[in-house]
Amino acid sequence: MRTQVGIIGAGPAGLLLSRLLALRGIDSVVLENRSREYIEARVRAGILEQHTVDTLTEAGLGDRLRREGLEHRGIHLQYPGTRHTLDFPELCGRTVWVYGQTEVVKDLVAAQLDGGPPLLFDVSDVRPEDVDGDSPRIRFTHADGSPQVLECDVIAGTDGFHGVSRPVVADADGRLWERTYPYAWLGILADAAPATDELVYAWHPEGFALYSMRSPSVSRLYLQVDPADSIDNWSDDRIWANLSRRLSLDGWDVSTGPITEKSILPMRSFVSAPMRRGRLFLAGDAAHIVPPTGAKGLNLAVTDVTLLATALTRFLQEEQTDLVDAYSDTALRRVWRCTHFSWWMTSMLHRSGDDFDAQLQLAQLQRVCSSEAAARELAENYTGLPIE
Amino acid sequence: MRTQVGIIGAGPAGLLLSRLLALRGIDSVVLENRSREYIEARVRAGILEQHTVDTLTEAGLGDRLRREGLEHRGIHLQYPGTRHTLDFPELCGRTVWVYGQTEVVKDLVAAQLDGGPPLLFDVSDVRPEDVDGDSPRIRFTHADGSPQVLECDVIAGTDGFHGVSRPVVADADGRLWERTYPYAWLGILADAAPATDELVYAWHPEGFALYSMRSPSVSRLYLQVDPADSIDNWSDDRIWANLSRRLSLDGWDVSTGPITEKSILPMRSFVSAPMRRGRLFLAGDAAHIVPPTGAKGLNLAVTDVTLLATALTRFLQEEQTDLVDAYSDTALRRVWRCTHFSWWMTSMLHRSGDDFDAQLQLAQLQRVCSSEAAARELAENYTGLPIE
Repeated sequence: MRTQVGIIGAGPAGLLLSRLLALRGIDSVVLENRSREYIEARVRAGILEQHTVDTLTEAGLGDRLRREGLEHRGIHLQYPGTRHTLDFPELCGRTVWVYGQTEVVKDLVAAQLDGGPPLLFDVSDVRPEDVDGDSPRIRFTHADGSPQVLECDVIAGTDGFHGVSRPVVADADGRLWERTYPYAWLGILADAAPATDELVYAWHPEGFALYSMRSPSVSRLYLQVDPADSIDNWSDDRIWANLSRRLSLDGWDVSTGPITEKSILPMRSFVSAPMRRGRLFLAGDAAHIVPPTGAKGLNLAVTDVTLLATALTRFLQEEQTDLVDAYSDTALRRVWRCTHFSWWMTSMLHRSGDDFDAQLQLAQLQRVCSSEAAARELAENYTGLPIE
Repeated sequence: MRTQVGIIGAGPAGLLLSRLLALRGIDSVVLENRSREYIEARVRAGILEQHTVDTLTEAGLGDRLRREGLEHRGIHLQYPGTRHTLDFPELCGRTVWVYGQTEVVKDLVAAQLDGGPPLLFDVSDVRPEDVDGDSPRIRFTHADGSPQVLECDVIAGTDGFHGVSRPVVADADGRLWERTYPYAWLGILADAAPATDELVYAWHPEGFALYSMRSPSVSRLYLQVDPADSIDNWSDDRIWANLSRRLSLDGWDVSTGPITEKSILPMRSFVSAPMRRGRLFLAGDAAHIVPPTGAKGLNLAVTDVTLLATALTRFLQEEQTDLVDAYSDTALRRVWRCTHFSWWMTSMLHRSGDDFDAQLQLAQLQRVCSSEAAARELAENYTGLPIE
């Protein structure tokens, strides 16, 4: 087998990269070691920046997004006694969209299988080889058990934090930065009509809570919990009681319904640099992880592959190396901006540390809720800064 | 002896309060346990917010300030390879003034001794009494050794963190918040013409450095050092070498000269609430300490006594308790805003923690140097928010 771009991993980064390259006339093959059912069922983020919506639309995936997605024009910031709305269009002229990453993946898979480049599920033993030379390849075992070799011009590692691509880059001359947060999110999906028009980010003495939604009939809610806690300790009743206590305000309360999914998610910041080794390019979670508070993970993956698609096109079609050479530095500037923003949102909203820290958090929240400059700083970052 | 307002402590808070009250026709007596020479020699902060300049001018102390003070229209933020200027008038329409707290105190003492309310130096054994009743008093020993009683309507505790007033309030129903930072400032005064038009706040891998000035011929510079370090370990040569390394940029360097004062200053955040017990009111460092990075300490003391002078005037002349009852909450809102800002500036600029923290600091600095919203948020806080 031979292709121009071998893509390891069929998450949103790999699938979108394949599609963006196809639109520019570049061949690719996507290898995924999970099944289609598995990757289409993973529950992940749900907030798309305007740039992400534009990119998906440009890639021909805007129809269902525009039909079923929900445009959101702000968020509510809450602390005891106060719920304040940040109006994004007024603050920065942009909005965000609520549309689950799961739906994005379904749309990308459907488009790929409908005449797009090859997408192979259930492969195993994936190994990028000779990435320092001009003729890299990917060895893998096909779902039918046969050993295969995919010869490529370049390889894209979009196989996430636990994938095989990241160590290949890190082994050369890589640097890692990591932060583990002393709290986790307990997340639920519930068949309950959202009781709020916009997401509610709530600071509470007992811990952070977030009210979000996936559709007019499905709510997604989160509670800050101890990362060592087990989901077995959290009955549905206990979850709702805690959500209600942390989110309720002046008679307003959460609307409850059957919980269809619940799990505890660790929170971590992680950056790997550079995002390239020879002809292997990393994008998305393979190179960086952010805590979910600022909803930046999926959006960063999309900006990575937007930059990478342009850089690879220039390299493969015009034999110019300027953009592939700049890719890692360009992508990392945005990665660090979003890493800082995600850390800042996370640190402002989660209870941790002592009472002095709590007062600092409340002082910051009060400032964001009373200052145009502070509110706009949050809004510009949350809705997504322009791509360089 | 009898007066309307007994003031404990002749720092800028106590002296300015006495003067603001006198302008409103209210008597006071200021008690100070140090000598005039001592309080006029203490080297402290040197950045005055516009509001502080206005208040001092209103109090009749604007002449020398306008003549010898230096109006500053911005600051330089520096990190390796970059020096960026924040233009305060452009960002928020305000400026700051460089005029040492030492000079403010000299002006206040001179005005007080020139026909102002009594100001007694070198007193001892100062004790506020019966602050919960309607007739409080201050017992003290006069400089001549005689025991004295000052009967008052109210007492102002402006005697700093180590004074006698704070414990009296805290003993009742007080709460304390405190943060000790894992670094200190080594500060010098040097007879050297400043090599920069505006202050330089410099992030450096080896630690923070600050280039400031007191006059066209006197520079004031600071180095981040370990709080356990001793000034004896720092020869003048070693100080200049470190300042040069952390502050230099593209051929620009510090200008050196004889060091006339050097010392190591610990850095702490501290807030005591409430700022009142009965007829005893706290203002300035007696109620709160901020690290010096944001230059907020003196300015907060001035806003405290501005609020307090108005509140006491209403209470003593109109017998209305609304403003004295609101004083603590009103003052503390600004205290927490400035405490947060000082913590934020400090945390952004001082090296501490791991390499991930360093990257977060650089990401924040780059953002402040490239975003109007982030720059304005710093500028509005630095130049001083309007008083509520």
